[in-house]
Amino acid sequence: MSINSFGHLYRFTTWGESHGPALGATVDGCPPGVPLQEAMIQQWMDKRRPGLNKNTTQRNEPDAVKILSGVFEGKTTGTPIQLMIENTDQRSKDYGDIANTFRPGHADITYHQKYGIRDYRGGGRSSARETAARVAAGGVAREAIKAIAPNVQIKGYMTQMGAKQIDRSRMDWDQIDQNDFFCPDAEAAKEWNDYLAWLRKDDHNSVGAIIEVVARGVPAGIGAPVYGKLDTDLAAAMMSINAVKGVEIGEGMAAAALTGRENADEIFMGNDGQPAYSSNHAGGILGGISTGQDIVVRFAVKPTSSILSPRKSIRMDGTPTEVTTKGRHDPCVGIRAVPVGEAMMACVILDHLLLDRGQTGGVRGKIG
Amino acid sequence: MSINSFGHLYRFTTWGESHGPALGATVDGCPPGVPLQEAMIQQWMDKRRPGLNKNTTQRNEPDAVKILSGVFEGKTTGTPIQLMIENTDQRSKDYGDIANTFRPGHADITYHQKYGIRDYRGGGRSSARETAARVAAGGVAREAIKAIAPNVQIKGYMTQMGAKQIDRSRMDWDQIDQNDFFCPDAEAAKEWNDYLAWLRKDDHNSVGAIIEVVARGVPAGIGAPVYGKLDTDLAAAMMSINAVKGVEIGEGMAAAALTGRENADEIFMGNDGQPAYSSNHAGGILGGISTGQDIVVRFAVKPTSSILSPRKSIRMDGTPTEVTTKGRHDPCVGIRAVPVGEAMMACVILDHLLLDRGQTGGVRGKIG
Amino acid sequence: MSINSFGHLYRFTTWGESHGPALGATVDGCPPGVPLQEAMIQQWMDKRRPGLNKNTTQRNEPDAVKILSGVFEGKTTGTPIQLMIENTDQRSKDYGDIANTFRPGHADITYHQKYGIRDYRGGGRSSARETAARVAAGGVAREAIKAIAPNVQIKGYMTQMGAKQIDRSRMDWDQIDQNDFFCPDAEAAKEWNDYLAWLRKDDHNSVGAIIEVVARGVPAGIGAPVYGKLDTDLAAAMMSINAVKGVEIGEGMAAAALTGRENADEIFMGNDGQPAYSSNHAGGILGGISTGQDIVVRFAVKPTSSILSPRKSIRMDGTPTEVTTKGRHDPCVGIRAVPVGEAMMACVILDHLLLDRGQTGGVRGKIG
Amino acid sequence: MSINSFGHLYRFTTWGESHGPALGATVDGCPPGVPLQEAMIQQWMDKRRPGLNKNTTQRNEPDAVKILSGVFEGKTTGTPIQLMIENTDQRSKDYGDIANTFRPGHADITYHQKYGIRDYRGGGRSSARETAARVAAGGVAREAIKAIAPNVQIKGYMTQMGAKQIDRSRMDWDQIDQNDFFCPDAEAAKEWNDYLAWLRKDDHNSVGAIIEVVARGVPAGIGAPVYGKLDTDLAAAMMSINAVKGVEIGEGMAAAALTGRENADEIFMGNDGQPAYSSNHAGGILGGISTGQDIVVRFAVKPTSSILSPRKSIRMDGTPTEVTTKGRHDPCVGIRAVPVGEAMMACVILDHLLLDRGQTGGVRGKIG
Repeated sequence: MSINSFGHLYRFTTWGESHGPALGATVDGCPPGVPLQEAMIQQWMDKRRPGLNKNTTQRNEPDAVKILSGVFEGKTTGTPIQLMIENTDQRSKDYGDIANTFRPGHADITYHQKYGIRDYRGGGRSSARETAARVAAGGVAREAIKAIAPNVQIKGYMTQMGAKQIDRSRMDWDQIDQNDFFCPDAEAAKEWNDYLAWLRKDDHNSVGAIIEVVARGVPAGIGAPVYGKLDTDLAAAMMSINAVKGVEIGEGMAAAALTGRENADEIFMGNDGQPAYSSNHAGGILGGISTGQDIVVRFAVKPTSSILSPRKSIRMDGTPTEVTTKGRHDPCVGIRAVPVGEAMMACVILDHLLLDRGQTGGVRGKIG
Repeated sequence: MSINSFGHLYRFTTWGESHGPALGATVDGCPPGVPLQEAMIQQWMDKRRPGLNKNTTQRNEPDAVKILSGVFEGKTTGTPIQLMIENTDQRSKDYGDIANTFRPGHADITYHQKYGIRDYRGGGRSSARETAARVAAGGVAREAIKAIAPNVQIKGYMTQMGAKQIDRSRMDWDQIDQNDFFCPDAEAAKEWNDYLAWLRKDDHNSVGAIIEVVARGVPAGIGAPVYGKLDTDLAAAMMSINAVKGVEIGEGMAAAALTGRENADEIFMGNDGQPAYSSNHAGGILGGISTGQDIVVRFAVKPTSSILSPRKSIRMDGTPTEVTTKGRHDPCVGIRAVPVGEAMMACVILDHLLLDRGQTGGVRGKIG
Repeated sequence: MSINSFGHLYRFTTWGESHGPALGATVDGCPPGVPLQEAMIQQWMDKRRPGLNKNTTQRNEPDAVKILSGVFEGKTTGTPIQLMIENTDQRSKDYGDIANTFRPGHADITYHQKYGIRDYRGGGRSSARETAARVAAGGVAREAIKAIAPNVQIKGYMTQMGAKQIDRSRMDWDQIDQNDFFCPDAEAAKEWNDYLAWLRKDDHNSVGAIIEVVARGVPAGIGAPVYGKLDTDLAAAMMSINAVKGVEIGEGMAAAALTGRENADEIFMGNDGQPAYSSNHAGGILGGISTGQDIVVRFAVKPTSSILSPRKSIRMDGTPTEVTTKGRHDPCVGIRAVPVGEAMMACVILDHLLLDRGQTGGVRGKIG
Repeated sequence: MSINSFGHLYRFTTWGESHGPALGATVDGCPPGVPLQEAMIQQWMDKRRPGLNKNTTQRNEPDAVKILSGVFEGKTTGTPIQLMIENTDQRSKDYGDIANTFRPGHADITYHQKYGIRDYRGGGRSSARETAARVAAGGVAREAIKAIAPNVQIKGYMTQMGAKQIDRSRMDWDQIDQNDFFCPDAEAAKEWNDYLAWLRKDDHNSVGAIIEVVARGVPAGIGAPVYGKLDTDLAAAMMSINAVKGVEIGEGMAAAALTGRENADEIFMGNDGQPAYSSNHAGGILGGISTGQDIVVRFAVKPTSSILSPRKSIRMDGTPTEVTTKGRHDPCVGIRAVPVGEAMMACVILDHLLLDRGQTGGVRGKIG
């Protein structure tokens, strides 16, 4: 059923609430013999961590990940890996006043309607804090990928904040970690910085974003048609992230406006004796299977619903009220969605590398 | 693993190739006691059927669905329902010439790379013909939904062909079945008709499209966070359809450009004593759970890759070649994707109605 | 959920009722490139087929299996394989009289209680006819195993009919196919023959049996602890067969009476440089993983509930009645359970060969 | 894939090694609103806990279970429940000497062969310590069952130790908790006590056992044919427990020796207006669905392989050696398997109560 699990062979189950004692991921299916230490995972946790800069929630969590199982003498054993993150900075009082109120744009009302009970503290299970567990699972996946397909590189970045897009002619992967926005365009980053400062301080508002994640060096031939396609799993992976409202592969929604002549990537033999393509409208996936080109997925994150401006809502008793969310919130949750998207990409790629190994034993049809 | 299966409790597995003897869906988990006859399914098959009008492939398939199991004396028994569609019009000769050639934009090359063998006739398993089995499974789902949640209505339509969008001010559900494009805007339909005629006959080209599917009357409270969210499953459902490159829920990718004040739907009590919303940017889903508003999903279909214009490609031996696809193909595969999208929506909605019944027993938190 | 599916990577879903138009298995996860023709599967179907001898139901079904998908030019393509068996000899009239009566020992009453509706003809879905689909799926598995682990041999036989056991000192695999009982002990076979003739003709009774299935040549190291253990999957596989009431691995229930000194198989290095064991109380499985010894599973089949002697029961309206089952039934269903047990063993072994390939890539710890 | 998970809708994943920092169960699918506190689970943990009496390992573990998620203000929320048990008494030094040696009867050698690496301390993942996590998951299941089917009672007991069986005429459920063996026959308990004392102290040996678990008051109609049958899931549940070599439902292996007249339970209407049966050879399950009678499952546990007597084995380098297991071990692991068997029964019953609710909505066919 996998309601709280994701993946076929590399399969993780996340657990925990925003303000419970801890949260984490139970990772099943990591191959044995992979070198793994907490620090290898922590680097990715730190990238997502709140309080890192003024643009993200000031909640101060070390988000220290602990490995409780599945690793022996620095290597994975092939048994389940429990990754636990203790919640240390839980200012529950900040949330007491919304115990009986539904915050617009949040899952408070639907959780209440479905379950008849909810942990209202910080959104409980529906909090984006759940994504910390995904980043941990992704950190393990990255180490396993290194062992199986060392040429794979996974990189995420923001391409749009609000209506402000990057200029792809200025795109530079080296810039991504040089600013607070995982932005590959240094000039756009500066502009976003001023815009976000104004939004937060003066406009008491928030804004959405678009994140792009690329997997480079993925071998051709992984993916499992028809319902476990690589793009199907990537769409599920990204849409399952809090606040995501759209997912695109390659050309994405824009493919609708293209003609067949424009869209189909022509094929030729590359200098390396492998098939190459004239373009990558497909985003590296044909029929749910990788082509060997960059795998490109994009997703849109809606603006943070928790803002300092008053919004109309109702209480559990149905009476009208206004909600002005105090507490600590990101004016643009999209920023911290970047490492989360990278983590989900890593999990999907590893899962399909393992799955393909099981299904085909890695047979590949010869070309040329 | 469910590589060729979809769904949690209402779970179907599709099988079959474009030019094999038959294809179909093995449907598991349909509730017992649902009135079901072949004609109830056939009406949806006919909507997707090729050869219905000049804008879709002239392949002439009756696509007659046969129920081989799971139904007794006109009612479902709760056991697996086998839905078989025999292939009657298989002009394999049309495909002989591409046995050793990879068609650009198609999965020929990736299937070859993954499996080392492929049924090249009409794309074999990667052919959009597989979607006929989905439509059959969706037809069963519609009948089961009637029995469980009779107020649910599911409707799909095209909102864009190429760069040409509908005018939402002219949108009229009654128009949808009045034209060849499942278009809710009569004027747009006329325009599309001329455009597509020119594309096909004069430009020897094809074009993409955007389809929107709405589920109205879905009760609040269904959906299974965190990895079986209603929107997650809808994203997977739509992205798994051939040629789909993007999926949106509610505001979709455009949510990135909105601010929090613009985006969050405000809540009040409706006249029916149920919560109501000032808008539906969320597309009827919050935190993966239905709000009771219309559930709105949108997806982009790339232009048909098989066109009468020559495209550069390679043969299995790596030598360069040009491919001009003969055979019978839709200039806009998006048209026939409409009933497929409706079918997937029906399957996901039924699945979550059943799942919620199992998980919560249908408890609902009181409001007001 | 897999209510009607079995397996992890090699996963089949069976469908169909005893007296519907057809039944079959939808096989997902068979590796590509495996030579497969209907005749390779048919040989196993014939072994299970009714009407082969006077000890099995006289229902005369050719049980001809048709491959509807997943095979191209004599080889599997890695896509789903649909195996269909048409029902040709459906004497429904034989069953009309039990439409409103529950046959003792059958699932008539529980299907009615669970579903509120049932196809009463021949037991519908609960008929042992479903096992024909398993044998077909097992036939495919055997061919795939040949390609991956050619040394594996799978053999099933009856070790007990009623209270009459074979003499293991006379056990001879070559005898198994020389009698009507898949009995490895020629003398026991003779005795069983007379006993069964008397039971059927004079006593109007039926009897149970014990079947043993052995997999020889399975490499050490396959199996997936903790809940996908090789023995766990074998227990589920065999218990899911109609009329099975007990499953044993190696020593089985008798292990309870042993002491630790008697039970633990001692280990030494064999002449082939591989670990060898002084005995095989474990049945070839330790901790859910294969040891390289024979994998030995045993299961008990209860006596046929349909007998010519009157049994007390009730009608749907609760009134008392007596049931004397006419129609055509095996006095010992255990006989035809032999090829079914073999088929399930083949499916489990293949599944774990593929699974291990995916999980570990076939790493093996060196010994010696 | 669920390699380390069990269940359909009520689904738990266990994690952790014998000598790691902690182990536990990630429980998904518990219904919302169930009152749950650690003490409710702890009572069952204590029943399984080591060191309770001289017949079980003297390892002294409090086995205190902590709830880390899924519970708010004393009630389940419908989100994943993390149950963690910290390992406090890890005398790893006791195991250092077997780092390079394979203990006969243990999974040391197969884990090494499969994974190429193993946590040898106390058997690591293959240790029976994993069953503590099952008992925790079972404790949660018991509370959920109370809320859904309050009449259900689940009770396990030992019916045989070594060759010594209980006398069923003296069977008394009230005796079960009055002795160290969960034995329902007071006289047998005395006999077992002396026998086990001798085995341990004088014979330096161990012995097997048979455990029976009964679920009383389970409503008729739950179970999911064909591959999710109630008995199929029970067989998998019990066979997945460490050291189990056989599983029986109702008559079990003995059904083979019965005739149809003896075996089929006759049906009549009970005084309560419900169907009743003349006997329960079926063990409360027909066609994989509950009849409303007691559900009876039995399993055999092999004798502890770790004994103080020397056993022949090999080292990783293939050289011969003798193993005499020091450390703390139960002379009869079957004793502590009783609460584990109860826990697995509780999980399976809850899972099928939820599953049936989802599948059929609890429709029941009327009788009488």
